[in-house]
Amino acid sequence: MWFERIVAEGLSHNSYMIGSAGKSAVIDPRRDCGIYVELANRHDAVITHIFETHRNEDYVTGAPELAHRCGAKICHGSHMDFAFGNKVRENDRFTIGTLELVVLETPGHTEESITLVLADTEVSRDPWMVFTGDTIFAGEIARTDFYGQEKKAEMAEKIYTSITEKILTLGDGVIVCPAHGAGSACGGEIADHPFTTVGYEKRTNPVLALGKEAFVSRRIAESPYLPQYFRQMETVNKEGPALLHTLLRVQPLTVPSVKAMIASGCQVVDIRSPTAFAAGHIPGSLSIWREGIAAFAGGFLDYEHPIILVDDFNCDLKTAFRHFMRMGYDNTAGWLAGGFAAWYRAAEPVGTVGACAVQDAKERLTRENVFLLDVRDRKNREHAGFIPGSHHIYVGELPQHLNEIPKNQPVIVYCDSGFKGSLAASVLALHGSSDVTNVLGGMQAWILAGYPVGK
Amino acid sequence: MWFERIVAEGLSHNSYMIGSAGKSAVIDPRRDCGIYVELANRHDAVITHIFETHRNEDYVTGAPELAHRCGAKICHGSHMDFAFGNKVRENDRFTIGTLELVVLETPGHTEESITLVLADTEVSRDPWMVFTGDTIFAGEIARTDFYGQEKKAEMAEKIYTSITEKILTLGDGVIVCPAHGAGSACGGEIADHPFTTVGYEKRTNPVLALGKEAFVSRRIAESPYLPQYFRQMETVNKEGPALLHTLLRVQPLTVPSVKAMIASGCQVVDIRSPTAFAAGHIPGSLSIWREGIAAFAGGFLDYEHPIILVDDFNCDLKTAFRHFMRMGYDNTAGWLAGGFAAWYRAAEPVGTVGACAVQDAKERLTRENVFLLDVRDRKNREHAGFIPGSHHIYVGELPQHLNEIPKNQPVIVYCDSGFKGSLAASVLALHGSSDVTNVLGGMQAWILAGYPVGK
Amino acid sequence: MWFERIVAEGLSHNSYMIGSAGKSAVIDPRRDCGIYVELANRHDAVITHIFETHRNEDYVTGAPELAHRCGAKICHGSHMDFAFGNKVRENDRFTIGTLELVVLETPGHTEESITLVLADTEVSRDPWMVFTGDTIFAGEIARTDFYGQEKKAEMAEKIYTSITEKILTLGDGVIVCPAHGAGSACGGEIADHPFTTVGYEKRTNPVLALGKEAFVSRRIAESPYLPQYFRQMETVNKEGPALLHTLLRVQPLTVPSVKAMIASGCQVVDIRSPTAFAAGHIPGSLSIWREGIAAFAGGFLDYEHPIILVDDFNCDLKTAFRHFMRMGYDNTAGWLAGGFAAWYRAAEPVGTVGACAVQDAKERLTRENVFLLDVRDRKNREHAGFIPGSHHIYVGELPQHLNEIPKNQPVIVYCDSGFKGSLAASVLALHGSSDVTNVLGGMQAWILAGYPVGK
Amino acid sequence: MWFERIVAEGLSHNSYMIGSAGKSAVIDPRRDCGIYVELANRHDAVITHIFETHRNEDYVTGAPELAHRCGAKICHGSHMDFAFGNKVRENDRFTIGTLELVVLETPGHTEESITLVLADTEVSRDPWMVFTGDTIFAGEIARTDFYGQEKKAEMAEKIYTSITEKILTLGDGVIVCPAHGAGSACGGEIADHPFTTVGYEKRTNPVLALGKEAFVSRRIAESPYLPQYFRQMETVNKEGPALLHTLLRVQPLTVPSVKAMIASGCQVVDIRSPTAFAAGHIPGSLSIWREGIAAFAGGFLDYEHPIILVDDFNCDLKTAFRHFMRMGYDNTAGWLAGGFAAWYRAAEPVGTVGACAVQDAKERLTRENVFLLDVRDRKNREHAGFIPGSHHIYVGELPQHLNEIPKNQPVIVYCDSGFKGSLAASVLALHGSSDVTNVLGGMQAWILAGYPVGK
Repeated sequence: MWFERIVAEGLSHNSYMIGSAGKSAVIDPRRDCGIYVELANRHDAVITHIFETHRNEDYVTGAPELAHRCGAKICHGSHMDFAFGNKVRENDRFTIGTLELVVLETPGHTEESITLVLADTEVSRDPWMVFTGDTIFAGEIARTDFYGQEKKAEMAEKIYTSITEKILTLGDGVIVCPAHGAGSACGGEIADHPFTTVGYEKRTNPVLALGKEAFVSRRIAESPYLPQYFRQMETVNKEGPALLHTLLRVQPLTVPSVKAMIASGCQVVDIRSPTAFAAGHIPGSLSIWREGIAAFAGGFLDYEHPIILVDDFNCDLKTAFRHFMRMGYDNTAGWLAGGFAAWYRAAEPVGTVGACAVQDAKERLTRENVFLLDVRDRKNREHAGFIPGSHHIYVGELPQHLNEIPKNQPVIVYCDSGFKGSLAASVLALHGSSDVTNVLGGMQAWILAGYPVGK
Repeated sequence: MWFERIVAEGLSHNSYMIGSAGKSAVIDPRRDCGIYVELANRHDAVITHIFETHRNEDYVTGAPELAHRCGAKICHGSHMDFAFGNKVRENDRFTIGTLELVVLETPGHTEESITLVLADTEVSRDPWMVFTGDTIFAGEIARTDFYGQEKKAEMAEKIYTSITEKILTLGDGVIVCPAHGAGSACGGEIADHPFTTVGYEKRTNPVLALGKEAFVSRRIAESPYLPQYFRQMETVNKEGPALLHTLLRVQPLTVPSVKAMIASGCQVVDIRSPTAFAAGHIPGSLSIWREGIAAFAGGFLDYEHPIILVDDFNCDLKTAFRHFMRMGYDNTAGWLAGGFAAWYRAAEPVGTVGACAVQDAKERLTRENVFLLDVRDRKNREHAGFIPGSHHIYVGELPQHLNEIPKNQPVIVYCDSGFKGSLAASVLALHGSSDVTNVLGGMQAWILAGYPVGK
Repeated sequence: MWFERIVAEGLSHNSYMIGSAGKSAVIDPRRDCGIYVELANRHDAVITHIFETHRNEDYVTGAPELAHRCGAKICHGSHMDFAFGNKVRENDRFTIGTLELVVLETPGHTEESITLVLADTEVSRDPWMVFTGDTIFAGEIARTDFYGQEKKAEMAEKIYTSITEKILTLGDGVIVCPAHGAGSACGGEIADHPFTTVGYEKRTNPVLALGKEAFVSRRIAESPYLPQYFRQMETVNKEGPALLHTLLRVQPLTVPSVKAMIASGCQVVDIRSPTAFAAGHIPGSLSIWREGIAAFAGGFLDYEHPIILVDDFNCDLKTAFRHFMRMGYDNTAGWLAGGFAAWYRAAEPVGTVGACAVQDAKERLTRENVFLLDVRDRKNREHAGFIPGSHHIYVGELPQHLNEIPKNQPVIVYCDSGFKGSLAASVLALHGSSDVTNVLGGMQAWILAGYPVGK
Repeated sequence: MWFERIVAEGLSHNSYMIGSAGKSAVIDPRRDCGIYVELANRHDAVITHIFETHRNEDYVTGAPELAHRCGAKICHGSHMDFAFGNKVRENDRFTIGTLELVVLETPGHTEESITLVLADTEVSRDPWMVFTGDTIFAGEIARTDFYGQEKKAEMAEKIYTSITEKILTLGDGVIVCPAHGAGSACGGEIADHPFTTVGYEKRTNPVLALGKEAFVSRRIAESPYLPQYFRQMETVNKEGPALLHTLLRVQPLTVPSVKAMIASGCQVVDIRSPTAFAAGHIPGSLSIWREGIAAFAGGFLDYEHPIILVDDFNCDLKTAFRHFMRMGYDNTAGWLAGGFAAWYRAAEPVGTVGACAVQDAKERLTRENVFLLDVRDRKNREHAGFIPGSHHIYVGELPQHLNEIPKNQPVIVYCDSGFKGSLAASVLALHGSSDVTNVLGGMQAWILAGYPVGK
């Protein structure tokens, strides 16, 4: 048999491919699905089945794209009405060569979530692996807040039951293959382990260790950040996304084109670093650094206005655009040819925001009457403490709280390390703040510098 | 943390790389070790430690090469005197960022075999993974026959104890990462699973299921095939192999050069398919098909005379040569430029052997007085049965049994599917047999054709 | 400015890409046109124009595919009614940044053939390069036989005039970039030079050296081989080919599938070497070795019945399938999973043809009454001589002359080196000949062996 | 025959490879010479000869490295005493399959410069191509100032004679393959053409058009910039450089390591963009942006102190380090792991310089008493004009003119577009200037903004 784990970085999304005897199946494929066809070809295998453990919230499913390319059958849980694919139910069995996949219905993250138990009958009928989708992760349990406040308790109970009664009972030695790794928006504190096992989770998973009641109570109390693009993903993944060959090609755009597009309301995303953005950028652009695209673009961009990327040297834009494609931003138009330098070489106006080291921030705070804004997420503020005197608004919720920021007072913004702070500064600048400074190094540097920390 | 499994195909050898916080360690590196440096660079990490679970028999260790390139410290078991590296002992602990590796001494395959237990202290001090080297494999226990007949019982007992008392006690949920996968010469019937767990092996490993006594008895009775190159590997891996930049480059060789080298006693390996070899080859060449190099070259080639490869279209020779390099064949000289066609276009003499379908073999066997030779390994002959009337010599042992083959009688040779049969036919042709025919499809086809099978 | 020459190997087809100041143009794109988009992206350029020097006969134009992907404007000569694109005429000028392309109408190969003269106005308005399409090649003049016997003289005169009056007058220092290199079916004896110049061709082109009258006379006398697929290319390239995303994916096929498809009339192409084919193949398959696909598949395959490839180790099938795609074989279905070995391991019947070295052929010819068939092209037979007693039918025309081959007499077939001979043998076997032998090394080996040569 | 042009980007260095009939030759190989071996292998060819058209000044020769890997013979001009290789002389002939290379001695750039004339005897004995090294380039004639003031006239005469009497007489249709393209430091105004011809240069080369006397006079008057590393290249290329396997591997460096190395005097090169550098950098680092390494590093770095690179996201550092390796900087030590963000996250002090758009520069100039510094090369200042009131020191010569910069006055520095200005600002900051501002967009933006230009 053969087994492959395919990671979509940024989203920390894992898809899996298993094969045996010329047949193969894909579990939770990403949208750029050429990799699965290539792997199948390399193994002289055809892809017969595509399984979706659940309707995803954080990325566009690749199932219809892959089915279009290879003719495989799409299977998903029965408790949702998808516009494509086939419903599968508890105990349904699928044979892939010597491999056998059995469906467990494991609601909680979504109502139709399923888990797939894999046995290799050539060795044993005992389960060898389990594909848990967004049910249990390494060190975490998936989010259960997608159905609104009134169903929080119900969904939390459901997922706890699904895990403890269906997954943990498979045996300690079963390898657990979840759909997300550390950094995913689908779970709070996923451990950075590519694989785990039932036994290891039983012993070490801190959320499991809470026990059912405490877990449900905590879930009722929590309101994790929900990026606005999740709603779009819900629709797209239920109705079926556009096939990739129907999308417009992204292309290099000249300075005049970019200006014209800005005039018509496009969205400019600056993927450079915080310092690069601070000392010069296209006025009105959002600062979402290269590695933050997957985690943050979906909180700030809409699906209508064309998206333009700005980089320094235009190296590896392919990867940057892939992030947008995976999140369904089929409205990406292109990139500024020549990088940001093309903009200032054309004598176009250059926007700036402040950036300073923690040493300078410290000094200004003692000297000036600034509005100090902490844009980290709530947990980090609680765990790591904060700079005394800071107001708190999570960067992802900043657009809804702009009126809380004084317009005529200098703003100093900080986050964990300086990246989200740059994004926040760009949001404020875009909405008219004229004196915003981002603290390079953020709370990490503040603590390392030995400055006072509030709790 | 990050984790990578790097497979050396052909040898079915697994090496592993783990990293955390800018540090990383490699376990059982292969000789072409650029991949480890690249992975470390990609993670902004330096390689601080290289672990060798044991002195390998089947491939050249990459530890000295890798240490030369990155300055890491080599660690191996203390019960052997290596010419390089450092000895580690039971319970020695190594820290790689948040990761902790603990040494277990697990003799049996070799005296100095060690096992490495990995915990990620960021999550728990409980063991998460275990790198078992050549001790326990998925569905198998490693060979214990390297110390000769008199120590067979002792080594078998040792490995059984190492496994049951040290590895299986780590907990069912611990992920087992062995140094070899299915197809390796270091274990008889390794299952085709990239990973396994303590719990899964406890439930499903058929060798473990024997119990200690039965296991030791069986091991005393067995004499698995020992390719001649293993002895060279023992020396090289103890003394330290040549660094790669000191090796001669392999290069294209013209027909006249190849002729001259043959005259001086070089070894010609024909890596084409059985039918390609049958209808024409350089007289005196060995038929070791592309995918059989790792498993079979070491049984037939020496380390002195230059080795020349012959292919059809010279596509992907890099991979073919990599197999030789990994087995320490630093005497590879090059390949026939233009492929085998260059040979016959130069009007050079063309050797042939017979090749026939099972239907023809069946007919000839009823009609002619042929010597029917089965060259499969003993187990396959026992398990799958044989063609009635066939003599048996395993292809790997054929050179030592040439005098058992009649010179003046037609020979029909068969194996499982036709590849080892081609190798056997080439060995016989090289040693003077003039009428040898290889059965395409071998025993597999014979059975599928519904012909009588002896047991 | 930037310049790229992109070669489609096998077809020996050159396309060109030029760019300047964020704009670029492609001349004669191939169908797998991702490379142009990638090059444009790398240069931060958009493709604004696609030029077709003429309606091609030997491969599917990539112009519509590329235009679909990047929105560029397609331009071709005005003397043909294409179903797509725009007509350009003598002296039309196109500006690509600092570059200027001027159209010359240069009929002869086809009526609407154009030549494009490139100047880099940043340096000079003098011509720097000329893209001659299928008009003049290095050391050759293009074919002029596509309009039938009655127009042979007219087209030959036209091309001679186009070359001498329009191209050669541009200046000796102008670099000539033709659409084909050595080995193309569009010119008889193209020199193996990637570039040439007007001056070099004036001095060294042997066809030019003939003078107009001799050239036209020779062209009237000649009837070069016209592969049957050229007619399909004429239609496809005038009407516009299918876009690639509409094609079925090629995939691995099991032995039972292949058998079923053979029963329904599919076409099996064996891309292995002559010896591999000789000692075993799927009965009814055509022997078109890997590197002969572009030159020979189009003479033997139709566009209706599914095409299946058979290889030995299935390495680099991508390249093999790319050849078919470029020739418009959108009916390729897949490949035999597991290679030819899968066939005989399944105990399926194995076809064979003979293969022998020239030494054996020589001996048989003196001893037996065989039908000796020379399948080389006419020119090689004339230039290099032949084996005395041989009949001559060019392999490409063999299907039309099968009745000239005796059914009840052994046939020995030879070509230049043994590859076309294998194809011919496969054609004869497919049509019922039961005793056919291909001479490995063909005429080359025969001559080198010092055997008698007829003239 | 086959022909390849291999470009070392950044240096705009062209090497060439030609091959025929299993043999090949390389002309002016770069130091990272794996590409030549790969190309030779792909063509089933051995490299028999390596030609050096002259002792290079701007990069480390790859001839000894390549000879070490493939055993080829190194050939260079006879009028210099190299520590390796063989001397060749006027009219020496070398045969590579059907190709013939003839040596012409063409002094001028260096005393031992040679030119190689290529004929393909399969087509004609007439010259087809000429490899002119650093003699004539597209649109330029090479530098002749390497032997000091007293020999300027002599060398200029020599090169003019070499070109007009030996190269231009080969025939207008001969393709000219020079060793450098546009952007090289070895010629002032090389046209951006990959190839040229004798005829095209005769018609369009503006330097040739001067005539001998005017050319020599101009050369006597000129003093082109001579980067300090040229002297090191002279020595290394005469004595033979270190082989690559002897070099230390570059590796990721933690913040503490970088601090320790800075304390011991290492050289820190910040390869980020001007805005990124402006808003934050490691104090004391040089701003040499990614694409400026090849052109500028050699003017500012020594060969003794370790070199450390700082990037934003550490993407494609391989290419960055390759530039250093090609220039012989065997003292490169590594890069800051985690990019510049790691520095400020560690609460280390952050340096800044000013950066402003031309609009702001304009305003400050009217308002403040600043020292305005133009760091463009002399030619650009002359051709494009300058900002009124600016002092001029070429960035490459800035280290020798630091005392001309007032310490207690704000400095505004500008170049053509903002990159060299960032380098100059970093040099000034490194030497103690505390108020330096770089004009983003430089003269280009100034002119486009319609501001007054001095002449």
